[in-house]
Amino acid sequence: MSHLWIVGLGPGNALQRTPQADAALAQATDLVGYAPYVARVEAGPDVVRHSSDNREELDRARHALELAASGRRVAVVSGGDAGVFGMASAVFEAIETGVPAWRSLEVEVIPGVSAVLAASARLGAPLGGDFCVISLSDNLKPWTVVCERLRLAAQAGFVIALYNVRSAARPWQLGAALEVLRDVLAADVPVAFARAIGRPDERVVLTTVAEADATLADMSTLVLIGCALTRRIERADGRAWLYTDRKVAS
Amino acid sequence: MSHLWIVGLGPGNALQRTPQADAALAQATDLVGYAPYVARVEAGPDVVRHSSDNREELDRARHALELAASGRRVAVVSGGDAGVFGMASAVFEAIETGVPAWRSLEVEVIPGVSAVLAASARLGAPLGGDFCVISLSDNLKPWTVVCERLRLAAQAGFVIALYNVRSAARPWQLGAALEVLRDVLAADVPVAFARAIGRPDERVVLTTVAEADATLADMSTLVLIGCALTRRIERADGRAWLYTDRKVAS
Repeated sequence: MSHLWIVGLGPGNALQRTPQADAALAQATDLVGYAPYVARVEAGPDVVRHSSDNREELDRARHALELAASGRRVAVVSGGDAGVFGMASAVFEAIETGVPAWRSLEVEVIPGVSAVLAASARLGAPLGGDFCVISLSDNLKPWTVVCERLRLAAQAGFVIALYNVRSAARPWQLGAALEVLRDVLAADVPVAFARAIGRPDERVVLTTVAEADATLADMSTLVLIGCALTRRIERADGRAWLYTDRKVAS
Repeated sequence: MSHLWIVGLGPGNALQRTPQADAALAQATDLVGYAPYVARVEAGPDVVRHSSDNREELDRARHALELAASGRRVAVVSGGDAGVFGMASAVFEAIETGVPAWRSLEVEVIPGVSAVLAASARLGAPLGGDFCVISLSDNLKPWTVVCERLRLAAQAGFVIALYNVRSAARPWQLGAALEVLRDVLAADVPVAFARAIGRPDERVVLTTVAEADATLADMSTLVLIGCALTRRIERADGRAWLYTDRKVAS
């Protein structure tokens, strides 16, 4: 029977992928997704891999729905959690705007450990209080909206996790975002650059709002901006943890 | 060798717990946590369970650190992800304010699938854009701060996930929070009550900002507030999906 799973693969380390995700992948006849994510899935020789490069997400979603409607058992894969800047929203947009038959498909979203949770765990407990997650990509929203969200989030006292911070096509946005945040946050608020967490090329840089250097980030970097309650705990060996105190003063 | 793991058990279904969490739990000599979470862990007869009821989280964290400092291999467990309103922040607060030797302990935070990700997956893709996560508990922060954060988050256009929405000790906060949100959001913005997702007593209610009834929530309910771009897709069988469109108009 046809089926469409939308699967979060977790941050990259297979130990952080859930058994529920593995079970869905084991039943799939077709894997659909951005090539590096599809390549991460072990599968038998009969499984068809539909890897796409820079192809538009909505096209990829429609292709997956067509396959499922034709009777295939399709897994659409994303890194981290598919619901957090992954493929899930594109698939439902394709369903909403597509043929009515797609609304009868069995669609199952399998949650995963998102990059923000993996980065937070690696750093300590920087998400200790309320927090928000913002994509710096201005492909699908105006840059003015990104800036306004950053300003309101910092005013609210949220810890802020930034996705899609920097790429060849997005060279200046993180620097501009840091400027917006410097208007609201104290200079010494901790900032972390968490790159490729859980993968062999993992790298962590701890810095501050005043000193954060946007050029240290790349496509695989998640940037975590603390709040007034985020503190750095120095360890005996020179390393440090970040955590956010749960208590907000009256 | 002594070790302290802070482990996110995931939302409740064992299939949503990572192999990394299982591996840590399998090495632990002691399990520390709120009783229902400790009870979820399968362990041999030699493993010591330190289950606490309404004991203060900071005391529980200190107890875990004392055990680890004495050479035990301790797993502190939380539901979902330990960094999202779980035990991680309390452990690091205890380290910061505790004896210097605790800074030399091997502490490892193991991320998990948080309740907000499991609820989002169950509903469709409501987190499709930028989002925030807010606890309605006013044990550790003034209620005025909660209200201000809700207002700013709604103004920013974030989808809002609410934790700790209702309990015997917290009977009126969700109703008051909905009133704050009604000042900012359109009446027809989708709202979901997602209770005990992934567990046998799971229950989902889809409603709107205007019609959301706070009394439908309990201790196990996560409330998800949509934004102007969150839409409901009706299915042939009467069920519906929620998703948030990724595109924000200029």
